[in-house]
Amino acid sequence: MKSRAAVAFEAGKPLEIVDIDIEPPKKGEVLVRMVATGVCHTDAYTLSGEDPEGLFPCVLGHEGGGVVEALGEGVSTVAVGDHVIPLYTPECGECKFCRSGKTNLCQAIRSTQGRGLMPDGTSRLSYQGKPIHHYMGTSTFSEYAVIPEIALAKIDESAPLDKVCLLGCGVTTGIGAVTHTAKVEAGSTVAVFGLGGIGLSVIQGAAMAGAGRIIGVDLNPDKFELAKQMGATDVLNPDDLPDGRGSLQQAIVDMTDGGVDYSFECVGNVDLMRTALECTHKGWGVSVIIGVAGAGKEISTRPFQLVTGRVWKGSAFGGVKGRSELPGFVDQYMSGDIKIDPFVTHTMKLEDINKAFDALHAGESIRTVILF
Amino acid sequence: MKSRAAVAFEAGKPLEIVDIDIEPPKKGEVLVRMVATGVCHTDAYTLSGEDPEGLFPCVLGHEGGGVVEALGEGVSTVAVGDHVIPLYTPECGECKFCRSGKTNLCQAIRSTQGRGLMPDGTSRLSYQGKPIHHYMGTSTFSEYAVIPEIALAKIDESAPLDKVCLLGCGVTTGIGAVTHTAKVEAGSTVAVFGLGGIGLSVIQGAAMAGAGRIIGVDLNPDKFELAKQMGATDVLNPDDLPDGRGSLQQAIVDMTDGGVDYSFECVGNVDLMRTALECTHKGWGVSVIIGVAGAGKEISTRPFQLVTGRVWKGSAFGGVKGRSELPGFVDQYMSGDIKIDPFVTHTMKLEDINKAFDALHAGESIRTVILF
Repeated sequence: MKSRAAVAFEAGKPLEIVDIDIEPPKKGEVLVRMVATGVCHTDAYTLSGEDPEGLFPCVLGHEGGGVVEALGEGVSTVAVGDHVIPLYTPECGECKFCRSGKTNLCQAIRSTQGRGLMPDGTSRLSYQGKPIHHYMGTSTFSEYAVIPEIALAKIDESAPLDKVCLLGCGVTTGIGAVTHTAKVEAGSTVAVFGLGGIGLSVIQGAAMAGAGRIIGVDLNPDKFELAKQMGATDVLNPDDLPDGRGSLQQAIVDMTDGGVDYSFECVGNVDLMRTALECTHKGWGVSVIIGVAGAGKEISTRPFQLVTGRVWKGSAFGGVKGRSELPGFVDQYMSGDIKIDPFVTHTMKLEDINKAFDALHAGESIRTVILF
Repeated sequence: MKSRAAVAFEAGKPLEIVDIDIEPPKKGEVLVRMVATGVCHTDAYTLSGEDPEGLFPCVLGHEGGGVVEALGEGVSTVAVGDHVIPLYTPECGECKFCRSGKTNLCQAIRSTQGRGLMPDGTSRLSYQGKPIHHYMGTSTFSEYAVIPEIALAKIDESAPLDKVCLLGCGVTTGIGAVTHTAKVEAGSTVAVFGLGGIGLSVIQGAAMAGAGRIIGVDLNPDKFELAKQMGATDVLNPDDLPDGRGSLQQAIVDMTDGGVDYSFECVGNVDLMRTALECTHKGWGVSVIIGVAGAGKEISTRPFQLVTGRVWKGSAFGGVKGRSELPGFVDQYMSGDIKIDPFVTHTMKLEDINKAFDALHAGESIRTVILF
């Protein structure tokens, strides 16, 4: 069958909207009709060509919401008509990782997913007879997608897919990093570096956890209003500091009587990751890396920072197990406990998707949602 | 009064055994007659001159056991005749750190201790009229020491001080790093880098925690017998690997189906700290830095290591609160649950203390205990 899709034919070039060919789902696979998809920095990162694991041509997109259209052989946990969120971090429930009880990083289909292929090692996507790579196991920039059953979270059908699609990446990543990875306690002080979709979600998560003080940091003051709306008690532009950008770490330490209890890096800048660690409190500070750094970049610090009680960790998809836990996030959205609507600053048709990347790069949007 | 002491007059020079002058304990201070003291790598590190915080002249030593001889004004929690272990990490019970419930790093007297002085900013030690610095708030290489009340753990009087003195640093640091910092669970796999007093204690702690596999790593095969005796299931000399020292990380990953659950760096080598982190298992590996790195040295890794679930932390005095928890460690020694005797490979008189440093540098001793 044909599917209208935004194809990344080459790194660094705009996406092209074409009708691709899509094969029916094979064993353990599901055909999903996409209703909405967010456009995330990670899509932009891969499109830029800087992602060393980027493969072209491909169909990008990993923040989708859709409806099950057809089932491959043996699929039993979703049915035609179910509303689903595709998961770039699947949950097979059977691998060493799923059974560990310690991580959400299911590895069941890791190697084929990393090569832009379905679990059987082939692609379902092609254009003019030539194969197109899948992306993150989701490829949501397409009217239809074939996705492994273990990479679909079945959600409440009454939830608006043009909002809860953002739970497929940014919002869940940010909230989960607070609740699952850092386990922030009520009354804690928190610093959040980078106020895009992830950082704002961290702020939201910290507010949900009852943090007493939440400091949002960004070079773009346009982000501050929404940060406050999400729960930031303080906002800080490093360029406004009397001693300049380089004094950011000391400024936060001074503001918080020795440092914050928890910090979150949501930019992907290794120098900022160090600042985020070192501005946490001696004895118990925990710093969580969420941002994706450039290829080959390394983080550094003096080991004394850790020996004196700071902890350095990271978070992927907020440590959240997609199939078992994401439906609960959707329910929390429906009950008003999780806010998503303020993140959707733009909506567009698939045909305009390159404008979504422009808005992202210009810092004008938090999230653009593409409506099919 | 006079006190026979081993004085470090200059960095890099042998200690000199002389009779120093020692003032009586002031308010909140206690005079302790030392019965025994261990000689630790940290003493050697400071003596070498490489410790940027080292101050000379000083009386080194921080792994002591003694008897309370006299009390300064207001001292109420120890009495003359009590058996005590001096604590380089005190426990005031009142500072922000003590009250946090999250760390053992009491900061009540940190700044004066760091300057080689008692809490009132002066020294109780002098020689020929010139002041001598205290060291780590303990200075146990002296027949008598004046120590703050909050830096003394009162212990079971029936415990042999020439053994349990090692709970003042090495043994507690190693066991505590396992039980308090890493919280190793039964059945875990563990790698321990460096099999000196700390590393061997980590092995012991891991065995106590019920770890299923404990891999001890050292370049000196003479350490392996004792490592096995303490509970190591495997011992590894990186120089014996078919692909050489540089393949250590991969060798451990291969031995453990993807990496160990917990690793401990007990050397102070920043490259080894990286290896220790990166040989832990994706998704949940925890690496604990215990070793003290050289001045200005930094640790590095790709942030991806953390984002994919590894955690980097550190431990000082094993995360153990000295006054409230160390007496329990002594009780565990008395009941046979903690082994210390095999660590005491040499005993000497104070007059021979320079030979203890020689044995340490030659890798011949685990611990020399000086008997007063």
